[in-house]
Amino acid sequence: MTYCLGMLLDAGLILMADTRTNAGIDDFSSFRKLHVLAQRPDREIYAATAGNLSVSQSVVTMLQEDQAVSEDDRQCRCLGEVDTMFQAAQVVGAAVARVASTVGAPLESAHIDSSIELLVGGRVGAGPLQLFLVYSIGNFIECTSEVPFLQIGERKYGRPILDRALRYRTSLPEAVKIGFLSFDGAMKSNLGVAHPIDLLVLPEDSREPAITRRVEKDDVYFAEITRHWANLLRDGVESLPGPPWMEEGGRA
Amino acid sequence: MTYCLGMLLDAGLILMADTRTNAGIDDFSSFRKLHVLAQRPDREIYAATAGNLSVSQSVVTMLQEDQAVSEDDRQCRCLGEVDTMFQAAQVVGAAVARVASTVGAPLESAHIDSSIELLVGGRVGAGPLQLFLVYSIGNFIECTSEVPFLQIGERKYGRPILDRALRYRTSLPEAVKIGFLSFDGAMKSNLGVAHPIDLLVLPEDSREPAITRRVEKDDVYFAEITRHWANLLRDGVESLPGPPWMEEGGRA
Repeated sequence: MTYCLGMLLDAGLILMADTRTNAGIDDFSSFRKLHVLAQRPDREIYAATAGNLSVSQSVVTMLQEDQAVSEDDRQCRCLGEVDTMFQAAQVVGAAVARVASTVGAPLESAHIDSSIELLVGGRVGAGPLQLFLVYSIGNFIECTSEVPFLQIGERKYGRPILDRALRYRTSLPEAVKIGFLSFDGAMKSNLGVAHPIDLLVLPEDSREPAITRRVEKDDVYFAEITRHWANLLRDGVESLPGPPWMEEGGRA
Repeated sequence: MTYCLGMLLDAGLILMADTRTNAGIDDFSSFRKLHVLAQRPDREIYAATAGNLSVSQSVVTMLQEDQAVSEDDRQCRCLGEVDTMFQAAQVVGAAVARVASTVGAPLESAHIDSSIELLVGGRVGAGPLQLFLVYSIGNFIECTSEVPFLQIGERKYGRPILDRALRYRTSLPEAVKIGFLSFDGAMKSNLGVAHPIDLLVLPEDSREPAITRRVEKDDVYFAEITRHWANLLRDGVESLPGPPWMEEGGRA
């Protein structure tokens, strides 16, 4: 399993990914799922991946090596050629479709799930920061300010806190905090999501430095806020009144 | 979609079920999913259902009418014959398997999902309160005190609060409160889960009366605790510190 979260905010772009992988339930391992696809003066494009590891690694490496993923001369064929993030998502989608037809097809005929999903974010030239979710078939959706986040993998456990707390105007430090609480929820309920968590923060102002960080299990800040959060939730539940139509004291 | 929750506690058994059903995304309706299967002086057996409505209604009605669900003379054939809750789960499983072969098979050949799941709880004779989750094939698992709850349907959004707050020793009023917060989480993130919520509380002491209640959208208690809970979560998130390795003030 995997959990990856992308947040596209007024203040910038944040990507987070755990590192737990498993082949069956008895073969757990740790792999990086947050990748630099392109990093040059005129473009920085990142991806977080969920799904079949051999398929996602092939897609990521093809893109990093600027291999041609499309035979259509009217389309950009690699990330080095794109002029916009939309074109970058098209190229990633084409790479996903290409790997699906080469690596994915034989997996499917062996009844092995070959599906993958990617969060693709970044900026090209003077364009804005953008964030896309690319599906297994190669189609994609773009993140907008109404719901300023996209998730892949083990989405649901970590979603309620995002629905409640994250807004487009949320500041970057606050969003990182909320993202960590979302990961804490996913990790508490699914052993298939685990530390370390890879974090990337790209401020909207491209002159400000990006932040990359690997958050280990014993990270002081992560441990502190999740401990406080557990206490807050426990005390909060206890502070709410019981149903007035049930007697107090433990019996209905 | 559906969300049903069963809690088996030291103090008693609680079943909760929403009432939202949908056939496609443009045909929402409201059906009761919490059912009395048997209610006599020597037995009270209840079920909450999730999945294909035609299949689950057939299963429930067969059981309510005490139709023979097994042709095996060595097994109990209806809920009126069972001596234990384990045997009740066997009978429910047999009814599920029987309906799968009659109603389910043609649905599957029309590529319509015919799967269902049931939470089955109650007591037979002087036996203890017990709770089972019956799967689509008719097999089942029993709830034990280690994790004192079982869920069917839209499980994940409402699970973290249960993992954090519900224990075997939790009192019944407290458990109803936690259950409502779990439903609130599921309803906030999935429109396919909705009021009214049907509630059943069976105290461990069989001399105490059962509580049944339909909780509508405008229920004063439900509205009050979920509003307080939203405020508690918002204030709680805000009270936690931001990452020390990001500057304060909204910028990374």
